[in-house]
Amino acid sequence: MPSISQRGQNMPQSPIRKLVPLANAAKARGVKVYHLNIGQPDLPTMQAGLDEMKRIDRKVLEYSPSEGLLSLRQKLANYYHRFKINADVEDIIVTTGGSEAVLFAFMSCLNPGDEIIVPEPAYANYMAFAIVAGAVIKSIPTSIEEGFALPPMEKFEELITPKTKGILICNPNNPTGYLYTQKEMRQLRDIVKKHDLFLFSDEVYREFCYTGAPYISACHLEGIEQNVILIDSVSKRYSMTGIRVGSIVTKNAAVRANVMKFCQARLSPPLIGQLIAEAAIDADPEYMLDTYNEYVERRKFLIDGINRIPGCYSPIPMGAFYTVAKLPVDDAEKFCAWCLSDFQFEGCTVMMAPASGFYVTPGLGKNEVRLAYVLNKEDLKHALIVLQKALETYNALGKE
Amino acid sequence: MPSISQRGQNMPQSPIRKLVPLANAAKARGVKVYHLNIGQPDLPTMQAGLDEMKRIDRKVLEYSPSEGLLSLRQKLANYYHRFKINADVEDIIVTTGGSEAVLFAFMSCLNPGDEIIVPEPAYANYMAFAIVAGAVIKSIPTSIEEGFALPPMEKFEELITPKTKGILICNPNNPTGYLYTQKEMRQLRDIVKKHDLFLFSDEVYREFCYTGAPYISACHLEGIEQNVILIDSVSKRYSMTGIRVGSIVTKNAAVRANVMKFCQARLSPPLIGQLIAEAAIDADPEYMLDTYNEYVERRKFLIDGINRIPGCYSPIPMGAFYTVAKLPVDDAEKFCAWCLSDFQFEGCTVMMAPASGFYVTPGLGKNEVRLAYVLNKEDLKHALIVLQKALETYNALGKE
Repeated sequence: MPSISQRGQNMPQSPIRKLVPLANAAKARGVKVYHLNIGQPDLPTMQAGLDEMKRIDRKVLEYSPSEGLLSLRQKLANYYHRFKINADVEDIIVTTGGSEAVLFAFMSCLNPGDEIIVPEPAYANYMAFAIVAGAVIKSIPTSIEEGFALPPMEKFEELITPKTKGILICNPNNPTGYLYTQKEMRQLRDIVKKHDLFLFSDEVYREFCYTGAPYISACHLEGIEQNVILIDSVSKRYSMTGIRVGSIVTKNAAVRANVMKFCQARLSPPLIGQLIAEAAIDADPEYMLDTYNEYVERRKFLIDGINRIPGCYSPIPMGAFYTVAKLPVDDAEKFCAWCLSDFQFEGCTVMMAPASGFYVTPGLGKNEVRLAYVLNKEDLKHALIVLQKALETYNALGKE
Repeated sequence: MPSISQRGQNMPQSPIRKLVPLANAAKARGVKVYHLNIGQPDLPTMQAGLDEMKRIDRKVLEYSPSEGLLSLRQKLANYYHRFKINADVEDIIVTTGGSEAVLFAFMSCLNPGDEIIVPEPAYANYMAFAIVAGAVIKSIPTSIEEGFALPPMEKFEELITPKTKGILICNPNNPTGYLYTQKEMRQLRDIVKKHDLFLFSDEVYREFCYTGAPYISACHLEGIEQNVILIDSVSKRYSMTGIRVGSIVTKNAAVRANVMKFCQARLSPPLIGQLIAEAAIDADPEYMLDTYNEYVERRKFLIDGINRIPGCYSPIPMGAFYTVAKLPVDDAEKFCAWCLSDFQFEGCTVMMAPASGFYVTPGLGKNEVRLAYVLNKEDLKHALIVLQKALETYNALGKE
């Protein structure tokens, strides 16, 4: 049998994946599992998108242009202008979800062996796409104690080598919910400019900023317009993760030319998803306010609840719909598995994402979990009770 | 400005792409362009698929499993059984179109520097995906004079090195319409077995075989079940290229495990496309007969017509909906450009794909074009008249 690729074997396996069989077994036993682990919003998909799907009146579901439908790119340009992001139609390339945007950005900008600096904890699939591109991630640790703020710029400078090609941020952040401050963004701009790096900025959660301070896009930073590659997706903001529509936005024409070659190789992004996304963007303003208010309440509810459980701690996330919380256990991965395999309270248990999967440096985040507040408050309330009982039981058992 | 990746710059630019601005300019001048260049069927999308789209009654368009919806995989398994392809549900992984299937197959099986043997002319995007995976394509020429039959196996043996990891075929073939014979498939099996290679077999056109001889899938070949990676897509067979649903089918569990890691990194294939594909597979038998009969007629019509034009020659394609034809010009790329930029007959012209873009070896196929018979007969008829006039005018001008 021919041997499989090393690259595939090097791909990280998220700790959540290991928990899936345990969760399925728990459900098979009749246990209700509260999913605090996933980024799939429970909120209904924006109705305008669902309506559009039924209205699509085409006889041929054909390839769209490799760069995406012009009409969608025009709507996206208008959408970005609302956020004072100066993106013209020609700066926007539609991708098959934000995932493909990350992959094509890496493929277009990085050679095998090139290094990118990524604050950790970070979205696990960045590591996966870096492996696909043959790039090397150099992580810069942030900590729950510091509320996941960026370390001082000297720490970035220490990591920069002749192979450093870019910095990747996710803002607002998955998994931490951290929102970069104006000061931090300016510092990033300075270092990007000084070393002429790419700044990959994943801003798919921009609609979910829960602070009075203004949202700072990488595209707002002056003087590095040719360095910024914006990664975006309509998945989270309209609760339509299944349609697979994202985008790459950049003023850098050479990067766009490279991206287009990868786009042409895969022919086109999904047609129906693009039509749904167009309808969603048109209907955006009303829907987003309701969604926003819902997440604001859930955030308060979850964070207050977590911080009331003895030994637990979560900083207040300022954006997205996640937080990274510390639990009073030594090994969150073991605890999360135990919750699914050995525990239930009144027929229920919780599934959480061990935070270790989001750190690059081994050993970091061992007693942390990522919690998503994508459940309704009723469920969140009960999930918190179940979590508290689980911690009490686990620690009383002397598992640690 | 940071430099872009070499990989992107190495990506082949199809000669068709260069013609697109010329075609757009012709249209802007009011010239009707007959598109003989593209693989976008003009046939309506299977109605059952269009109906399903309007029937989808979901409140949340959410991520599907990374391996695809179980219900779709079950229907695909039944579909493959109709073709005597022994594929169980667990052997099938749903991809975002056949394009992603090729990419993930390469990523999962090939290390940078690994070589794969591909008969040329070949679908140009194989070259693109090989570059993405860092793999090297070793082409084995086939010729219009030999009707694009495979060369004897000694020619394959000559290309095999310690770095050879697989053979890629497209059967029925894009761009040639060639259908591999039982004898050729057995020879491929022997060489794959002898050298323990992967056999990547792109069979997205299996429904379009116009010969009484049986269609031989790579999955029918005995003794190399662990070597075969089937690439598939519903795009062409149901005329729904825009939904982006394909699949990788293999009995090789190690390959599947690797593929799944890439699938998980991109989260999920498009949800709505999968639901439409399910409906299409259910309705498949009736629709396919009509489609098949239509292509049979168009094929006869186009091939007879081409061979009647002085100096033109096309072998009879036995499958798919393409043929590679020889034209009485020295440089088909120049002629194709001229048709768009300088020629019209009664307000019409033709767009064809210069075949050089499908060859890996420089200089091959210079006087050949790929023609797709995805237009209705009325249009094909007029396109042939226009093509004949164009050739007469071009050669009378002494352009050659």
